[in-house]
Amino acid sequence: MPMVGPETADQARLLRLLRDDGPRSRVELTDLLGLPRARFAAEVDRLTALGLVESAGPAASRGGRRSSLLRIGAQVRFGAVLVGGGTLRVALTDGELNPLARHDEPVDVRLGPDVVVGRMVELLGKLRVEAGLTSLTGVGVALPAPVEVRDGTPVSPPALPGWHRFPVRDTLAAELGCPVQVDNDANAMALGERHAGTGRPFDDFLAVKLGDAVGCGLVLAGSLYRGAASGAGDIGHLQLSEDGPLCGCGNNGCVEAYCGDAALVREAVTAARAGRSTVLADRLAAAGTLAVDDVAAAATEGDPAAQTIVRDAARRLGQVLVGLVSFVNPAIVIIGGAPAGIGPVLLAEIRGVVYRRSTPLATGSLPIVLSDLGDTAALIGAAHLVSTQTYAAR
Amino acid sequence: MPMVGPETADQARLLRLLRDDGPRSRVELTDLLGLPRARFAAEVDRLTALGLVESAGPAASRGGRRSSLLRIGAQVRFGAVLVGGGTLRVALTDGELNPLARHDEPVDVRLGPDVVVGRMVELLGKLRVEAGLTSLTGVGVALPAPVEVRDGTPVSPPALPGWHRFPVRDTLAAELGCPVQVDNDANAMALGERHAGTGRPFDDFLAVKLGDAVGCGLVLAGSLYRGAASGAGDIGHLQLSEDGPLCGCGNNGCVEAYCGDAALVREAVTAARAGRSTVLADRLAAAGTLAVDDVAAAATEGDPAAQTIVRDAARRLGQVLVGLVSFVNPAIVIIGGAPAGIGPVLLAEIRGVVYRRSTPLATGSLPIVLSDLGDTAALIGAAHLVSTQTYAAR
Repeated sequence: MPMVGPETADQARLLRLLRDDGPRSRVELTDLLGLPRARFAAEVDRLTALGLVESAGPAASRGGRRSSLLRIGAQVRFGAVLVGGGTLRVALTDGELNPLARHDEPVDVRLGPDVVVGRMVELLGKLRVEAGLTSLTGVGVALPAPVEVRDGTPVSPPALPGWHRFPVRDTLAAELGCPVQVDNDANAMALGERHAGTGRPFDDFLAVKLGDAVGCGLVLAGSLYRGAASGAGDIGHLQLSEDGPLCGCGNNGCVEAYCGDAALVREAVTAARAGRSTVLADRLAAAGTLAVDDVAAAATEGDPAAQTIVRDAARRLGQVLVGLVSFVNPAIVIIGGAPAGIGPVLLAEIRGVVYRRSTPLATGSLPIVLSDLGDTAALIGAAHLVSTQTYAAR
Repeated sequence: MPMVGPETADQARLLRLLRDDGPRSRVELTDLLGLPRARFAAEVDRLTALGLVESAGPAASRGGRRSSLLRIGAQVRFGAVLVGGGTLRVALTDGELNPLARHDEPVDVRLGPDVVVGRMVELLGKLRVEAGLTSLTGVGVALPAPVEVRDGTPVSPPALPGWHRFPVRDTLAAELGCPVQVDNDANAMALGERHAGTGRPFDDFLAVKLGDAVGCGLVLAGSLYRGAASGAGDIGHLQLSEDGPLCGCGNNGCVEAYCGDAALVREAVTAARAGRSTVLADRLAAAGTLAVDDVAAAATEGDPAAQTIVRDAARRLGQVLVGLVSFVNPAIVIIGGAPAGIGPVLLAEIRGVVYRRSTPLATGSLPIVLSDLGDTAALIGAAHLVSTQTYAAR
């Protein structure tokens, strides 16, 4: 049963403060909101009655008047879903977006949205029951696809064949009986990095997401920036070369056709068959196929062919980033979605290209780093999406 | 003598409403600000006493209670300065940023900032006296340079040799005795287009400025976006090719080395000397030199060599825009700073490249148009810069 939400802008602001900064004392919160004490108490009473806020014991004394701590209510629980790289990840978070439980399993997105969205419903239900909940407060979904956020539907997603315009949001909302928000996985990663990761101190950063789909989330002036039609950051199908490799989208030479997981695997199979890598050839012989983790493992072992594959992809990505970094002038670039182990090779090459070719004002002191949250960033970000709706005034 | 400014956020909002939308009735403004009538009257009285607001007669009846119009006070007068293309432009605007008077004259920026800023002071003084004013409310300056907005100084500006870190803002403020704001000319153009031009209805657009320096102003989510260190939109020195033509900045193959005025002139001189264009050769023989207007005139006359020069530059610019448009997903791209006459050739080529190569979500319905304000956009934008300071609560 969905809860009724905050009624006023001050209630909404209070909830977002508690989500973003954790428990705080009533005295601090009264000051932060700039409210008279009686008014603050009334707003808190209303949120407490709804279960959105609860007391968390006495605050540590600061020598002034005694105060008690407030936090988001324990019945606030968000579901989070992330699809990508052949894996369906489902998580449960508390009202501050801390992950409480998680389930990962293989998924074949080519089975279509009916099957995969159905499985999301089952897994979210399982996590909900295991946590002893009768309902979820809301669910956020991150897809490796351009998403029309207004409708909650993927739009012509090359990495999700058959999902075009499928009503992911409305289907889940009807099945689960709670609000649902859907967005691109790179946007979700950016929100997660902003909430709980490397991006937390920065108002302006890029979150570049590698994997089966390549994308970029933009946090500009402190907020996720989606552009005029939810298309901002869709760099995966920028064409780098007209005679480049064929891309899953049907065009040639896209960023994804150079830097996506499928491109790394394609190059690895070629190297194995051409006798350029015994490591990759052995793995191919053993499994009959290669995955991106094989490329990563081989590169980590020092296999020259695998390292060249990673470096080539990183150089292409660097060439794209040169323009974006000069254009947006971010404070930091965070790279996620790369398989474990290839980080150092990847970063070295990207930094080489970006620092050599960008304009000085943009890169004078620009850190380019790997995400340390990994795929948890996009799960936290998915929960963030729907929490912003839950914590908004009606 | 600088006036004292608004004291409250409501006063500041009222001033910005009157600047952006022109005179409005007290009744409408009271509703828009959501203020009790007595409080609104008190705020207006305070602004009237400061000369920032004045009555503008009775409002047209809407069948309800009678109301009178308010507008920005007639003593509010901003100065605006734009440097670029060998011309110093100085204008005077009213408090709604309508241009009232303007003076253009040739300038050689290589004489250095002392001389040129000194001339700005003289010309602003002349406009002020001709308008019968004892002082200016504020002055905005747009320079063809990266500008550290916090300090009001240009930073390593290739198009303004000798101006690095010159205190343009503080020098002018001391000489003129009023607040001064300095920014990049592309940012000023974007603000002007947003206030009074093609960009007015759009919350998300790019303003691309050609000319001696090439840059881009970003209006994102309704506001000018400057990035983490005032560097957003600095596309002029992105390197398109490592073996490209030498740029004024000392590197090779920058956007400006292909698309800047100096590049067009360089190619035109080469074409004239190589016998590829009698039109350009005749102009070169007559004047001993060529300017970008000669290229534009020749292209307009149908000279094939001049048209090729313009098309080549436009194609390079289009290649840069492909990435930016996919990345930011603007609602419209406005191109300014091109010499009169070359617009059609330029636009056709840019559109060809962008529509062919960008991602569908970003360019499904993306207009790419020429600015119809011309260099007035950057002058209005310069006035806008300082008006925002004047109309902000202290």
